[in-house]
Amino acid sequence: MKEKEIHQMIYRTFQQGRGVAVGPGDDCAALDFGGSRYFLAATDQLVSDVHYIHGRTPAAAIAKKLFNRNVSDIAAMGGTPEFALLTVASHSADKKWYSAFIKSIQREASRWNVSICGGDISSVKKDVTVCTLTINGWVDKNKICLRANAKPGDFLYATGLFGNSFKSGHHLSFSPRIEAAQFIAGKFTGAMIDVSDGLLIDAQRLALASGVGLVLDTAGIPLRKGASLKSALSEGEDYELIFAVPSSKSAMLQKKWPFKNIRLSRIGEFISGGKGKIYDLEKNELTATQKTGFDHFDDQGN
Amino acid sequence: MKEKEIHQMIYRTFQQGRGVAVGPGDDCAALDFGGSRYFLAATDQLVSDVHYIHGRTPAAAIAKKLFNRNVSDIAAMGGTPEFALLTVASHSADKKWYSAFIKSIQREASRWNVSICGGDISSVKKDVTVCTLTINGWVDKNKICLRANAKPGDFLYATGLFGNSFKSGHHLSFSPRIEAAQFIAGKFTGAMIDVSDGLLIDAQRLALASGVGLVLDTAGIPLRKGASLKSALSEGEDYELIFAVPSSKSAMLQKKWPFKNIRLSRIGEFISGGKGKIYDLEKNELTATQKTGFDHFDDQGN
Repeated sequence: MKEKEIHQMIYRTFQQGRGVAVGPGDDCAALDFGGSRYFLAATDQLVSDVHYIHGRTPAAAIAKKLFNRNVSDIAAMGGTPEFALLTVASHSADKKWYSAFIKSIQREASRWNVSICGGDISSVKKDVTVCTLTINGWVDKNKICLRANAKPGDFLYATGLFGNSFKSGHHLSFSPRIEAAQFIAGKFTGAMIDVSDGLLIDAQRLALASGVGLVLDTAGIPLRKGASLKSALSEGEDYELIFAVPSSKSAMLQKKWPFKNIRLSRIGEFISGGKGKIYDLEKNELTATQKTGFDHFDDQGN
Repeated sequence: MKEKEIHQMIYRTFQQGRGVAVGPGDDCAALDFGGSRYFLAATDQLVSDVHYIHGRTPAAAIAKKLFNRNVSDIAAMGGTPEFALLTVASHSADKKWYSAFIKSIQREASRWNVSICGGDISSVKKDVTVCTLTINGWVDKNKICLRANAKPGDFLYATGLFGNSFKSGHHLSFSPRIEAAQFIAGKFTGAMIDVSDGLLIDAQRLALASGVGLVLDTAGIPLRKGASLKSALSEGEDYELIFAVPSSKSAMLQKKWPFKNIRLSRIGEFISGGKGKIYDLEKNELTATQKTGFDHFDDQGN
């Protein structure tokens, strides 16, 4: 069974009340309590031997990844994280494991001024560990970035490097792009997603939600050390941001980009027609010929 | 390892920011966004073969239990649920399982006007299923019920019946006590908890947090069909409310109680001294001689 089918069931079945401005299908849900900001909510899991290597990845690294991939979902909406809830279900976790895990997750939380204000611990009968984090934050209503907001003619920009995330250890050590997101949200972009499952599949989600196609300048995709183009397109776990920038704002963005340590790359252009299809500069349809990404759908509700 | 030790680590390590009015250690966290209400947040897990029988408990029953035990945490604070996020990590769940699960959880959500606004689905390499729900809601600041608010001389009241929850199937079919909670919160009580792990252990949590002792009228505890006093004290999964009522309000509460189908029972009295200790009318210390309850600590952060 494809997880896509389950997500279709979810979209069809779950009914959203009036307080839900953005429901399942984006990186976070956005709740409207009145006022000038939306309250953001997302939840994500790390499962042993699916998202890390059981018995080999240290507890501190698992905690760091769990926390930061959730923060990355807040970044993708242009928001700021503030609260989190944590659950762990584990067979093998002992006092030492929990001690390292709890200290590590608090280290990350302190870095982003997030309060981990509740949670739940359970045992499991088989040797599996499942950790979940629910993250909450805020975004100004006029800065929120949604997958559906890309327009034909917008350029696709990316932060950082792509590919070879697993072998290089990037998937455990990355820093979520909160500051970059806050710099661009509202001012330079209204359409953003974080690349967790793969550049191609996450770019496709932007294009699909926006009802547009995308021409990708594959030679312009900045590669992580040791990465092939193929791994950059489909391996995922980059936790970089990709976002649509109106062509009129493109030069200004490049001029004003203040982050010396975060590479900014223009890697494509959205086009009308070919909804959800991604082409290279030679008009080959990449979404038809390439593995698009992981089907574990680790992003919120999708 | 006792889970209590992990919770002690959590209390010591997790730092709470200014927006957190109530952090780990109550049924929900309470967040203060200004205004007259707190935003409530709790998260809870259902793990196969820990909280239900894998392969035998139907998907619809698992979903119902997952949802309603989280709603019960909102009830315990005197609140109203409004939003939820869902995760499932499962090896064996197929399309049919997910279909029944998703429909059932939406049925419960509709009943309480809750929007399930996001979530995450993952696979697991071993035959285990872990479901989590994060629930959010609201409570008026002047109605919030905390474990720490019981006073010496207050009576302990309980809704419903206790014991034999597993065999009777009550743990899968119970109805969370939202209406009852809203009737009593602020008006008759400011100290409440829901009984998930066991009457004795949950009453002890009230007493400990409040710095008081408790004399329990064990003969006054209303038993579910087939229940022994022992099962009523320690089996848990009752999802009833127990709460402290000032003696001056006791007669009025009994007179005004509007719920014909929910039994209201006065089952004890808080005393000064003996912090966290529970005695019967003959002054036997029950917390020393009886199994107090499950150590799976399925309630929020405790």
